Amino acid sequence: MNQEMRWDDLQLGGLGIYQDKRQFCFGVDAVLLADFCRIRPKERVLDLCAGNGIIPILLAGKTKAKHIMGLELSERNCELFRKSVERNQLSEKLSVCCGDIKDIKTVVSGAEFDVVSCNPPYMEAGSGLLNAEDEVTWARHEVMCTLSDVLDAAAWSVKSGGRVCMIHRPHRMEDLLVGMRQRKLEPKRFRAVYPKPGKKASMILVEALRGGNPGMDVLPPLYIYDESGCYTREIDEIYGRVKE
Amino acid sequence: MNQEMRWDDLQLGGLGIYQDKRQFCFGVDAVLLADFCRIRPKERVLDLCAGNGIIPILLAGKTKAKHIMGLELSERNCELFRKSVERNQLSEKLSVCCGDIKDIKTVVSGAEFDVVSCNPPYMEAGSGLLNAEDEVTWARHEVMCTLSDVLDAAAWSVKSGGRVCMIHRPHRMEDLLVGMRQRKLEPKRFRAVYPKPGKKASMILVEALRGGNPGMDVLPPLYIYDESGCYTREIDEIYGRVKE
Repeated sequence: MNQEMRWDDLQLGGLGIYQDKRQFCFGVDAVLLADFCRIRPKERVLDLCAGNGIIPILLAGKTKAKHIMGLELSERNCELFRKSVERNQLSEKLSVCCGDIKDIKTVVSGAEFDVVSCNPPYMEAGSGLLNAEDEVTWARHEVMCTLSDVLDAAAWSVKSGGRVCMIHRPHRMEDLLVGMRQRKLEPKRFRAVYPKPGKKASMILVEALRGGNPGMDVLPPLYIYDESGCYTREIDEIYGRVKE
Repeated sequence: MNQEMRWDDLQLGGLGIYQDKRQFCFGVDAVLLADFCRIRPKERVLDLCAGNGIIPILLAGKTKAKHIMGLELSERNCELFRKSVERNQLSEKLSVCCGDIKDIKTVVSGAEFDVVSCNPPYMEAGSGLLNAEDEVTWARHEVMCTLSDVLDAAAWSVKSGGRVCMIHRPHRMEDLLVGMRQRKLEPKRFRAVYPKPGKKASMILVEALRGGNPGMDVLPPLYIYDESGCYTREIDEIYGRVKE
């Protein structure tokens, strides 16, 4: 274990996660997506762009999923993820797959999962100066995979009647919703996340049903902070079992 | 003037509207859409499915549009609309076109308008028992025109760089957003309307830019009532000049 790696307690039944201080550490978006995903007992889950495994580990602690697989491109992240699985004694429930979502057909057989989750890179390639060799860049920018690649992988992996749950920026909302329908992933639940009342949304959460009929529910907004700058009660509840 | 027709003061610079008590009277959705539309001075506006003309009359009172045309299928509604234009002395600014949006190409030349607004029938044909001869049904159900017809007409009528502003039910959000992009109407502003905090949205407002680049803003939610059951301050402000 090197000195750049730290163990963070997730305050979730003793679970924790290894993070590399120099790398991308998980943020509120991962916590919100894990909360938004509704996983039923015995379901099989695939998390795409899994990073250091935060979403699979949170779902392992919060749900009765039968199995959760995380697919991640970065070797360094996969190493952290595997160490966390081991220390959390979750190797029966969690598996780490180091690979490229563009090769999804060689990694998973089709229609294998009840739920596919993904917190993808948000920023389009070409926006800003990038170091394409940098794994922090991979997590934030569409250097190694585009939204289209993510949706292709999700549509391939999820069962008919299964769900795809994603978080993204409002800026890409139209691309996300159009891309979902193009792949027979019909958006059914939509929720916007606001930094605080009166501001524009900073994130959106979408659940799509593979092969579902049209018809969306627009859920109540989720505010991170209230007007006085404190976490809202809902955020406290979501974080109640998961502190950064 | 028959006894079923009444004159309602809009509390907007002396403007009013004739409504038929037996017919569809305007609701909060028309008021919210008129408020959501951003009309610049001297712009030309087309309102589709104009009904008795509530949106054109509100826009005439609230904006410096050069001209606003309302297109409406029902003869009875067109008659009410014309009478309101006359009594409001708005005939230089407002025009009533009685016709079918499916014949839009015979009614307006292409790319003629800076802004197209529409508060369309919300319910899909086939949902519930319908009397297709009933003009109240036309206003609520897609008997005489579908969402697809509305979007075709809007895309035909709006200039490149012009805006299309619509209100619809969340249930049809995916159909609306996908249908817009298919017609090069790129959604740029999205706002959900909630009956009160903690409930699912009851309406959505969308502004699309003809030929625009992808990139959406998700605006703060709009609540109709607060938790104590009173109109919110924002609704009071919107209705400040427009009381039902």
